Amino acid sequence: MSAPDLLGRIAGPADVKALPPAALPELAAQIRRRLIDVVSRTGGHLGPNLGVVELTIALHRVFDAPRDRIVWDTGHQSYVHKMLTGRADRLGTLRTAGGLSGYPCRAESPHDLVENSHASTALSYADGLARGLELTGQRRHTVAVVGDGALTGGMAWEALNNIGAARRRVVIVLNDNGRSYDETVGALHAHLTALRQDAAGNTDHSTDGNTAGDADGSAPNLLRILGFGYVGPVDGHDLRALDTALRRAHDAHGPVVVHVVTSKGNGYAPAEQDPADRMHTVSPAPKPTAVTGDPPPAPKQAWTDVFGDELVAIGEERADVVALTAAMRLPAGLGAFGDRFPHRLVDVGIAEQHAVTCAAGLASVGLHPVVAVYSTFLGRAFDQVLMDVGLHRLPVTFVLDRAGVTGPDGPSHHGMWDVSLLQGVPGLRLAAPRDAVRLRELLREALAHESGPTVLRYPKGSAPAPVPLHSRVGSLDVLTPRRLHSQVLLVSSGPMATVAVAAAARLAELGVPATVVDPRWTHPITADLMSLVSEHDLVITLEDNAIGGGLGAALSVAAHRAGLGTRVIPLGLPVDFLPVGERDELLRACGLDVEGVLHTVTDALWRGAHWSAPDGGERPLLPDPLLQM
Amino acid sequence: MSAPDLLGRIAGPADVKALPPAALPELAAQIRRRLIDVVSRTGGHLGPNLGVVELTIALHRVFDAPRDRIVWDTGHQSYVHKMLTGRADRLGTLRTAGGLSGYPCRAESPHDLVENSHASTALSYADGLARGLELTGQRRHTVAVVGDGALTGGMAWEALNNIGAARRRVVIVLNDNGRSYDETVGALHAHLTALRQDAAGNTDHSTDGNTAGDADGSAPNLLRILGFGYVGPVDGHDLRALDTALRRAHDAHGPVVVHVVTSKGNGYAPAEQDPADRMHTVSPAPKPTAVTGDPPPAPKQAWTDVFGDELVAIGEERADVVALTAAMRLPAGLGAFGDRFPHRLVDVGIAEQHAVTCAAGLASVGLHPVVAVYSTFLGRAFDQVLMDVGLHRLPVTFVLDRAGVTGPDGPSHHGMWDVSLLQGVPGLRLAAPRDAVRLRELLREALAHESGPTVLRYPKGSAPAPVPLHSRVGSLDVLTPRRLHSQVLLVSSGPMATVAVAAAARLAELGVPATVVDPRWTHPITADLMSLVSEHDLVITLEDNAIGGGLGAALSVAAHRAGLGTRVIPLGLPVDFLPVGERDELLRACGLDVEGVLHTVTDALWRGAHWSAPDGGERPLLPDPLLQM
Repeated sequence: MSAPDLLGRIAGPADVKALPPAALPELAAQIRRRLIDVVSRTGGHLGPNLGVVELTIALHRVFDAPRDRIVWDTGHQSYVHKMLTGRADRLGTLRTAGGLSGYPCRAESPHDLVENSHASTALSYADGLARGLELTGQRRHTVAVVGDGALTGGMAWEALNNIGAARRRVVIVLNDNGRSYDETVGALHAHLTALRQDAAGNTDHSTDGNTAGDADGSAPNLLRILGFGYVGPVDGHDLRALDTALRRAHDAHGPVVVHVVTSKGNGYAPAEQDPADRMHTVSPAPKPTAVTGDPPPAPKQAWTDVFGDELVAIGEERADVVALTAAMRLPAGLGAFGDRFPHRLVDVGIAEQHAVTCAAGLASVGLHPVVAVYSTFLGRAFDQVLMDVGLHRLPVTFVLDRAGVTGPDGPSHHGMWDVSLLQGVPGLRLAAPRDAVRLRELLREALAHESGPTVLRYPKGSAPAPVPLHSRVGSLDVLTPRRLHSQVLLVSSGPMATVAVAAAARLAELGVPATVVDPRWTHPITADLMSLVSEHDLVITLEDNAIGGGLGAALSVAAHRAGLGTRVIPLGLPVDFLPVGERDELLRACGLDVEGVLHTVTDALWRGAHWSAPDGGERPLLPDPLLQM
Repeated sequence: MSAPDLLGRIAGPADVKALPPAALPELAAQIRRRLIDVVSRTGGHLGPNLGVVELTIALHRVFDAPRDRIVWDTGHQSYVHKMLTGRADRLGTLRTAGGLSGYPCRAESPHDLVENSHASTALSYADGLARGLELTGQRRHTVAVVGDGALTGGMAWEALNNIGAARRRVVIVLNDNGRSYDETVGALHAHLTALRQDAAGNTDHSTDGNTAGDADGSAPNLLRILGFGYVGPVDGHDLRALDTALRRAHDAHGPVVVHVVTSKGNGYAPAEQDPADRMHTVSPAPKPTAVTGDPPPAPKQAWTDVFGDELVAIGEERADVVALTAAMRLPAGLGAFGDRFPHRLVDVGIAEQHAVTCAAGLASVGLHPVVAVYSTFLGRAFDQVLMDVGLHRLPVTFVLDRAGVTGPDGPSHHGMWDVSLLQGVPGLRLAAPRDAVRLRELLREALAHESGPTVLRYPKGSAPAPVPLHSRVGSLDVLTPRRLHSQVLLVSSGPMATVAVAAAARLAELGVPATVVDPRWTHPITADLMSLVSEHDLVITLEDNAIGGGLGAALSVAAHRAGLGTRVIPLGLPVDFLPVGERDELLRACGLDVEGVLHTVTDALWRGAHWSAPDGGERPLLPDPLLQM
């Protein structure tokens, strides 16, 4: 006789609370099966969610959400939470346009509060919530669920320093699985391990939610020093122990940390047993392809892998090249480099600020550091790039992966602000490779530049087929045969070259000769590029960055300042939080495809200027992303 | 008989080392007298430097700089260091154009390493230095001097987590004076106080550099938990105790913290006894004025005070308004608000990231937080403004003091990046008040805006005389009589209105009718502003922000996209690290004065377009700050 469908009956936390304790293991098993089944189809964060099945059940039994406020740090661990708050039946739509977000999402449920998926924010949010609830006289609990990896981030420390001193009731659930992608680094990890080992001698303590370190004379405990009550360590897969521990925290009068020990991927052997943690995120299953008889397409090479390969090659040649990652060794492409040169790879934890300034320190003794980081996470360290690296004109190379539209990770993972931020850093040079050939080439150029910071940016996914150059103008690659009297210049950044070349071919068919140029180094703009601009009537820039702060804006300003008659129309991403969607679809929606370029060019050439007062009936060429009227 | 001039004989650390211990108190006294004498004339950071006189002497006796690397966090505590490394005779030029920087400066001395004056960076730098020295096989010491206030900053935690685990030799000198501007906040401060009190029962320990907590069974020590050796607490004004403690740290084999207890302003009663710490920074003594018989000019009101006053008035009317500061209560103008509404003021320590996300938490329960912060420090929290506030469309108002050119604090204090950063945050609205009347008005408008973040920015110093409006176009203030056929439109941001109005008067004399408009809300640009732009041939924007990411760039792009014939020339600050200098002088050097505007307008109208190839002889209108050729 098969077990009843418990999960199908869960419409919200009340139904979780109503289940008898004896039924909970079966609920956990059904959740796990659903997770494995769905996420292996949709793709997404599998390991982290398998690790928090029991914890999430226990949280929704002990606390009274959404009245009590539960904040999930690094929201990719919230799938189980979604399943227990009325969204289990929609889990199959995960990370698709119009479907469930891969992170908490306020539009989906009143149970979701914080949509930002960057790590280490939940404790600060919780401090604000607790202060606000107190000021407004509301008696509710504030709970923050945070991983041990996220505690390596500085803002978590800033929050601990405040919450610990303030004595307000805040429950911090420390989900200690010992890793981010890699094993968590640093002194804190060693301390948490010591606390676990300390407790291991006394099974009573670890199973009843009572604590080693609770009584006087116990081992020193950093969290207690900072003013927190401490409950744990608790086996995060033992529902009874979790229940006891969370109820103690629920009834505490001040801030308290519940130290929950979980195993990432729990209950799924392929995830549990992979030391490289490849089940942290899984890709969607490949769709069955029609049988056409065609040979399978040649596998494309991921940008990340091209970078990783070339960095190893350079590392063989140059002993001064070192690499840094903020807890993203494998996703950022540093696996091979770290294997080959373990002493020249620094993993600082989820600590982008420290990574950048540590790189500045390394550079100041004559090394050339490469900081490999996702574009979206560099915003954490702008001040350090500007002041610690930029002001000191140090040779640090930043390699920004996942730059531009990323896709199913949604608004907080699109890497569309880096160019706007970085173009303000004096002396910084930024390059966008259009293909794998150029990535290798530009990485070497960046590492040869010793008088200031350099940046390379490339998107998620595979590098396109190489786009050869026809000629060079100074440092610029001209990608079309140069015609003396071409009217239109397409200036493409990075892999937008592929679109630009295709658009130029279509324009030629329409009788509009167009030249395509890839500046390779897109910031700062060069005199060569300005000369080329001045020879054209219409310049269209194509870039995978928010309009207003990128290459297009820089050319637009420079053309105006120089008094050129040339019209510069920047195509890029609107200043908005882009939704979940496939990269190609989102680029198309922003006019960054061949049709978009054709429309822009033909409209500009054949329709002309047409700004008029808002009530005058005429509209600007494109909905202007800079105008939020 | 007066004491010999010891300070005059110090040309470098070797001379400090050569002095007999008995002579050191006299050297310290001479340094203090010189500090008080000079800094009361030049202005600068007095209290912090009086607090580190003995510590700096001891550091230069025990360590072998510049071979050993000494990094000063928040470099304003480096005046004594400058005096002991050959710059005592130039101290009188402090913080003047061409004189000594108020922070370490590599151009001044090989003893200076880190020029960034933002707090909490030194430990990350030191981690990089120590790693780099190890990788390159150099046996030198790395020493970081950091205040207890700076340890509340998250990146310091990121560094501690790394340094503590790595076991490399790094000496952290914790200069514990118990305060930033205000008393240091948070759980760490409480712990350091406990360590001091713990040791106070045993005077032997505190004077010989030996430690409470050194033996087994001692009180828990957070720094030991994180893997550091701990020496102290040491009386930071006892030269012998300092010498002993620093030598112990010098000889340690792993990372070690020397906990030095100092008193800010030590040896100068007016500084020591002021609980408000007004001697942290002192202003230059007023220059004697010629006797003219004119009545003294009416005192101008500082921007900061106008903000502070109005916020109290609003606070009386609205219970939902709360204020946050990152350890800058008085400098950011929140003193009166905190006195009146102590429960509605949050000081989070030097922790801008936490301040912003804590504000997001407060806003999410229905409060309207005001985060008052210097422009230059907001770069620390860009990711939090974007993701925690912006993505959630929360009503948080950021009030950016010291926006634009600041003056003698030098490159890392100019607030010239905020607009470029913030214009990328979807849904954010930014205003720049032109005078005190508008600051009060715009603050109220910002606090009435509930559907997303708002920002006000104003510079250091006094608000200019009010600039009345002649008419309104939508939300825009037109500051000149509107002429139907004015050829030139001057769009000014904030107090640049004063310059624009004066320039328009001069242009009228030259027969060039010009209109001046203050958009008040400078981002996003509005349809009203674009209509006005489209009616003019030439638009000059004036803003106190780096060119390329501000109002001028946005108008330039929008004009191009709309296909207008209007030429837009943005005037602003070059993308460069501006040197020390008076605000007015630096603005003039950037063309942001009446003469600069006149030159730009006349050149554009009567000289026309003139871009040509770099070797063609012709130059762009102005040296283009976007072109770094």
